[in-house]
Amino acid sequence: MTDTPLSAAYSDLEQRFARAQHIDDALELLEWDHATMMPDGGAPARAQQMSTLRLIRHELMTDPALGELLQRAQSDIATLDDWQQANLAAMRRAWVHAAALPARLVEALSHCAAECEMIWRNAREANDFPALAPKLAELLQLTREAAAAKAEHLNTTPYNALLDAFDPGMTTDTIDRLFTELESFLPTFLPQVIERQRSQPKLVMPAGPFPVEAQRALASRLMTSLGFDFTHGRLDVSHHPFSSGVPGDVRVTTRYSEDEFLQGLMAVLHETGHALYTRGLPPDWQGQPVGEALGMTLHESQSLIIEMQACRSDAFIHYVTPQLAETFGKAGNGTGAWTTANIKRLFQQVKPGLIRVYADEVTYPLHVILRYRLERALIAGDLAIAELPGAWNEGMSRLLGISPPDDADGCMQDVHWPAGLFGYFPTYTLGALAASQFMAAAQAARPDMPDAIAKGDFTPLTDWLRTNVHRYGSKYGTNALLEKATGSPLSSDAYIQHLKRRYLPD
Amino acid sequence: MTDTPLSAAYSDLEQRFARAQHIDDALELLEWDHATMMPDGGAPARAQQMSTLRLIRHELMTDPALGELLQRAQSDIATLDDWQQANLAAMRRAWVHAAALPARLVEALSHCAAECEMIWRNAREANDFPALAPKLAELLQLTREAAAAKAEHLNTTPYNALLDAFDPGMTTDTIDRLFTELESFLPTFLPQVIERQRSQPKLVMPAGPFPVEAQRALASRLMTSLGFDFTHGRLDVSHHPFSSGVPGDVRVTTRYSEDEFLQGLMAVLHETGHALYTRGLPPDWQGQPVGEALGMTLHESQSLIIEMQACRSDAFIHYVTPQLAETFGKAGNGTGAWTTANIKRLFQQVKPGLIRVYADEVTYPLHVILRYRLERALIAGDLAIAELPGAWNEGMSRLLGISPPDDADGCMQDVHWPAGLFGYFPTYTLGALAASQFMAAAQAARPDMPDAIAKGDFTPLTDWLRTNVHRYGSKYGTNALLEKATGSPLSSDAYIQHLKRRYLPD
Repeated sequence: MTDTPLSAAYSDLEQRFARAQHIDDALELLEWDHATMMPDGGAPARAQQMSTLRLIRHELMTDPALGELLQRAQSDIATLDDWQQANLAAMRRAWVHAAALPARLVEALSHCAAECEMIWRNAREANDFPALAPKLAELLQLTREAAAAKAEHLNTTPYNALLDAFDPGMTTDTIDRLFTELESFLPTFLPQVIERQRSQPKLVMPAGPFPVEAQRALASRLMTSLGFDFTHGRLDVSHHPFSSGVPGDVRVTTRYSEDEFLQGLMAVLHETGHALYTRGLPPDWQGQPVGEALGMTLHESQSLIIEMQACRSDAFIHYVTPQLAETFGKAGNGTGAWTTANIKRLFQQVKPGLIRVYADEVTYPLHVILRYRLERALIAGDLAIAELPGAWNEGMSRLLGISPPDDADGCMQDVHWPAGLFGYFPTYTLGALAASQFMAAAQAARPDMPDAIAKGDFTPLTDWLRTNVHRYGSKYGTNALLEKATGSPLSSDAYIQHLKRRYLPD
Repeated sequence: MTDTPLSAAYSDLEQRFARAQHIDDALELLEWDHATMMPDGGAPARAQQMSTLRLIRHELMTDPALGELLQRAQSDIATLDDWQQANLAAMRRAWVHAAALPARLVEALSHCAAECEMIWRNAREANDFPALAPKLAELLQLTREAAAAKAEHLNTTPYNALLDAFDPGMTTDTIDRLFTELESFLPTFLPQVIERQRSQPKLVMPAGPFPVEAQRALASRLMTSLGFDFTHGRLDVSHHPFSSGVPGDVRVTTRYSEDEFLQGLMAVLHETGHALYTRGLPPDWQGQPVGEALGMTLHESQSLIIEMQACRSDAFIHYVTPQLAETFGKAGNGTGAWTTANIKRLFQQVKPGLIRVYADEVTYPLHVILRYRLERALIAGDLAIAELPGAWNEGMSRLLGISPPDDADGCMQDVHWPAGLFGYFPTYTLGALAASQFMAAAQAARPDMPDAIAKGDFTPLTDWLRTNVHRYGSKYGTNALLEKATGSPLSSDAYIQHLKRRYLPD
């Protein structure tokens, strides 16, 4: 080894991680293009390009020098300022997730997940769980091996090690407490909400067709109202909505149906929340791990605070209804569809269903709790893949009062497990809790917010988010950031209060 | 060193070059996005992504192991088949161009060219050659150093070494012979053509506006007629038209003006010629140097055979005129604009001018010959940058009978030299000669071609090109490929015959 002075170790790390980040950024753009622009025939070449870039990134992160540099920088930590120290911690975490696994396991996992996802597509289509089970069991076994290896490096449990990849530092202790609170509230709350909805005037479903170009123009106007800057981003169409890119160039996608406008619109608002977070990340730390978004819980909190908290609020409905009427009014089925009262019924409808991605705010956490309990048992070895359909159906029945008619719309509905994503599901609901908590704090700080939103002015909210959330990147963990921004760590209180106020007022 | 068996050296090289190629492919996509999709605010981050990928590629190509592997594979060449041998030669050439220069010089060149191009933009705008001269002189000096270093590795002259980067194996011997032939023909031919045009009915200039969407739809239809497959490519808009991508995913761009349709349309046809070449490259050799396009002369021959040879021919004019009339007829200024006779006058107009990029087939080579003679003198040290404007104006006057009113539309009109591209200009005219030569051979093989093109069927031409040109990639040099496909090496005969037939018939 050369005799690098200690202070040089940290600089060297910054250069190496910047390089890895630029490769990640390039990969994101290749993926964006794949989803939005690429002709079908480009797929094989694109796969090769991406595989090469991923391999180069993997080589960077598993360079034996990296572990040593991290150690040296750690022993020199007193010379680093608070941002640099946080950056070093984020580097270490990224390194553990990339380098903790033997090359053999990384390759086996990636290969098995790719195969399993392919099998899943057909098995789901054919409602044939037994066709999926063997490969999924193999993937689970590899994931358990990986979780154990990472747990050792992170000094935690295997499932916590999986969580850590999606929400740094998140643990089952926190999740168990929060989900138990939700589980003791929601199943009794839900029937009351449904009962109350039944007593209200019936929703008049707006009828189409809803011209795609009109939907696009409206979405784009609303994005601009939300502060999305089209000199630093785009809106395009893809099969699944997503947001990607870098702070200077954020790409949002959605999809439009001529028959229905709500899903495409809400997807835009949701992804715009993600995009504003990306855009607001700390400019001085671009290209470094601490300059990245903290994780999926925080990211989801930022999409949900826009979509669920702000854009399904009475204030937003007041603002958007005339625009909806003007855009789609002629196509809608006449009387009653385009009033604020009816749009409120549409935007705030609660309806227990089989499918997580179509769930409303009240039932969504129940879908997540089910998956969380099941995947913990799977990782712990307490549940076998063969037992999954039964356990799933039992859980759906207990939590939501619904019995799935088949596995396609039951335990096979999500891509996550077949894609090897275990430990991801909780972040959806943790994000929803964080969104409520941020919203409560933002409202307290800016009492003018609802009036502003009713006029299409989102700056009281977005200014608060930029100042209290976005600009910290990954400097603090989820709980520490929440405590700093809202005065308390992640809690279910604000969410429960929010649900009560919105769905069972007076 | 490990005791790698000789046969392994070549396999190792294939892996390394595939990796470099995938990085190049990713870079091309990032550039395409930059030119077509990226919001302005994305520029700084994109520059970083591209710079990192370029650096990684440079490191791959300058890995000391590469030179040794090339030697080992060379000593084992008898075990390689003809494609592998050609691939090894192409690898060696790529390696020389990447690795012949000391790192210091590579960096200085890249830095100086970036600065010089920036200065050029302003200096051209302000018609201020003295503002450009010092940086251009510095860039020339660095280029001369680089040329000398490459010349040593390639065992040729410095200017030939520069040419080799754009057209492998091309030399001044060939160019001098061909350009002398053109120079003795064109200056006497040109006034005859102009005289003849003057005796013909006057061109009725079609008047706009030409709606952009109508132009796009027509361009897209014509691309399909030419065999462009939109499941393997796209047509988009960028400031400067270009074609890029990989065989499975070729991206063509153009620009549209509401005032004028010909430039946008011809750019599409030109770029489609490039795109068909890319699409037709040998599928078994994708990702390897021998699977790439041979160089700029061949590439330009493929764009010009489509744009100039096929799509300004009487047969194509017969085919396209009714479509132009239908697309733009209502917007055009009435009688006479949309007849085949008038469109022929438009498509085949010859008009000496100041600017190379607007030049027609007859005058274009004279612009190129001027630049060739000047850049050879610059590289040889026989001409100083300070003397460039005078030498330019003298040459324009001698070759084209035009005196540039200023340097902005004189020696500062092209980006090439300020961007560090010396040795590139000749390929435009070499490509034009090759296009004529290929066309003559294709016509002889497929006498049905004009009749087919008149009906919008390009397959006699494109089949011939695929079989005789595209599928060879970089297997043969320019002259060898021409000899194989047409029976003789690169010559000016077919071009001169073509000009005579088209511009001075009977």
